[in-house]
Amino acid sequence: MEKVNAVILDKMQSDVALIPQLASHIIAAGGKRLRPMLTLAAAQLCGYREERHVALAACVEFIHTATLLHDDVVDESDLRRGNATANAVFGNQASVLVGDFLFSRAFELMVADGSLEVLGILSRASAVIAEGEVMQLITTNDTETTEDAYLDVISSKTAALFAAAARVGGVVADAGRPEVEALDSYGRNLGVAFQLVDDALDYSAHKATLGKSIGDDFKEGKITLPVLLAFRRGAEEDRVFWRRCLEKLEQDDGDLEHALDLMARHNALTDTIERARHYGARARDALGIFSDGALKSAMIDAIDFTIERAY
Amino acid sequence: MEKVNAVILDKMQSDVALIPQLASHIIAAGGKRLRPMLTLAAAQLCGYREERHVALAACVEFIHTATLLHDDVVDESDLRRGNATANAVFGNQASVLVGDFLFSRAFELMVADGSLEVLGILSRASAVIAEGEVMQLITTNDTETTEDAYLDVISSKTAALFAAAARVGGVVADAGRPEVEALDSYGRNLGVAFQLVDDALDYSAHKATLGKSIGDDFKEGKITLPVLLAFRRGAEEDRVFWRRCLEKLEQDDGDLEHALDLMARHNALTDTIERARHYGARARDALGIFSDGALKSAMIDAIDFTIERAY
Repeated sequence: MEKVNAVILDKMQSDVALIPQLASHIIAAGGKRLRPMLTLAAAQLCGYREERHVALAACVEFIHTATLLHDDVVDESDLRRGNATANAVFGNQASVLVGDFLFSRAFELMVADGSLEVLGILSRASAVIAEGEVMQLITTNDTETTEDAYLDVISSKTAALFAAAARVGGVVADAGRPEVEALDSYGRNLGVAFQLVDDALDYSAHKATLGKSIGDDFKEGKITLPVLLAFRRGAEEDRVFWRRCLEKLEQDDGDLEHALDLMARHNALTDTIERARHYGARARDALGIFSDGALKSAMIDAIDFTIERAY
Repeated sequence: MEKVNAVILDKMQSDVALIPQLASHIIAAGGKRLRPMLTLAAAQLCGYREERHVALAACVEFIHTATLLHDDVVDESDLRRGNATANAVFGNQASVLVGDFLFSRAFELMVADGSLEVLGILSRASAVIAEGEVMQLITTNDTETTEDAYLDVISSKTAALFAAAARVGGVVADAGRPEVEALDSYGRNLGVAFQLVDDALDYSAHKATLGKSIGDDFKEGKITLPVLLAFRRGAEEDRVFWRRCLEKLEQDDGDLEHALDLMARHNALTDTIERARHYGARARDALGIFSDGALKSAMIDAIDFTIERAY
């Protein structure tokens, strides 16, 4: 990962100083770098011992960062991981354009690597992510959204890049088709689990005790699984409440607390985590065809970590 | 071009209905399709007789369309070519995301074509375009911008894609290095001329007589060559005027008319067109190594058309 970070720092440079300034703001804010780690781990699990996976892991992080920059503009977010978002500091305009730059730079890096198969995987994933984001835009504020429609959204907007990140690791290692498909499946299911837990955390008392803000999705009227479950399991008067808060966005003091009460009453958060466990189990089983070892254990630990951070 | 349009219509489809709706809004609004025509003409000028250039011309138009969608969000524009912009109709959020989709789709199309060289040319051009847009964002409202800095901006934001579009035509035709470089040079200089004329047209009485709106750049405080020339050639009291209108964006009734008067007094528009002629001449001479014929004549006519539309 140190080598990946060095490539990221090197390739986000530009003579236009605002680009590295803005890019380093979001990249240094430092997410968990889960996606590039998937590429590295997948390649090594397939016995890869060379260096190509380093630059490709950086591509994956660039694509992810570009979508984050655009997401924050689309969501009009002010905070990400407790820090001011790039759009809040540098403006929406710069965030849109630097996102475009990082996205283009990712493709330049892939071209330098030279694998059309990798280019195909990541260009396809990028188009699917954009489709997922548009789907989410449409379902936002629609409390009638089904769990299936919600899963379509998160499979596209989140899990597609997890799947592609892991698949690229297998491809670069020249692994066989069963191994590459297994890695794709591992990444995809891990991605769904990750997003489910993220969506639960947005309403989590545990997160609130860590001093992080909760209820951002509620304020924006985003329809996530915790809301879906509470809506479908609730009485008609509850639905009137959800429609007022999330469709009409008419929210008063105490509404978030009432939403949390309804979620607790209907086990909406615990069952969202339970659903995440299901995808975690599928991710774990996808790795079954690989022989045991330290790396495989670490990849399984990543599933557990993804789910346990809910507590 | 009919085949290119068919590919564009086919490849902008998605199960997410909002994507083709929004994409067709901007694509059907129908620009001049100058960039994909460059790819087709360049390939044919090099004797190419197959079909690959059709899909690649569509890629070029997708990249252009993606940047237009993002530009209109960045500029907060309501009108493009006299029609409501996509962001005005569908919102900024959808415009950002559908731009990302079209951009990803362009790379998918290139991967299907299979040439790493083409992928390299267009990914590099895309990164340069984004750099140019960020540069423009920084120079906006800065009346001290030099003509050189302005040329850097338009070389990146506009001419880079013209150059890449023409170069790709040569590469797909497997033309020699002198021919490919000549096509690049033709496209690049044509692109600079095109943008100069566009910037002059934004203040053009001729355009106003056609019922099109003028002064959009003035309202946004964009520093283009007509402004640069009028600012540098004017007296100190004129500069106070330009700074108030374009840096502080304090504009009153009659200010646009006064700006037009100052431009007329200092020949700012006619000399901007004169500068465009210089780049047009360079574009024409770049084609000198190709033997005469109908296609070469058409490409020279395109230069003349680009410049003469100012009148």
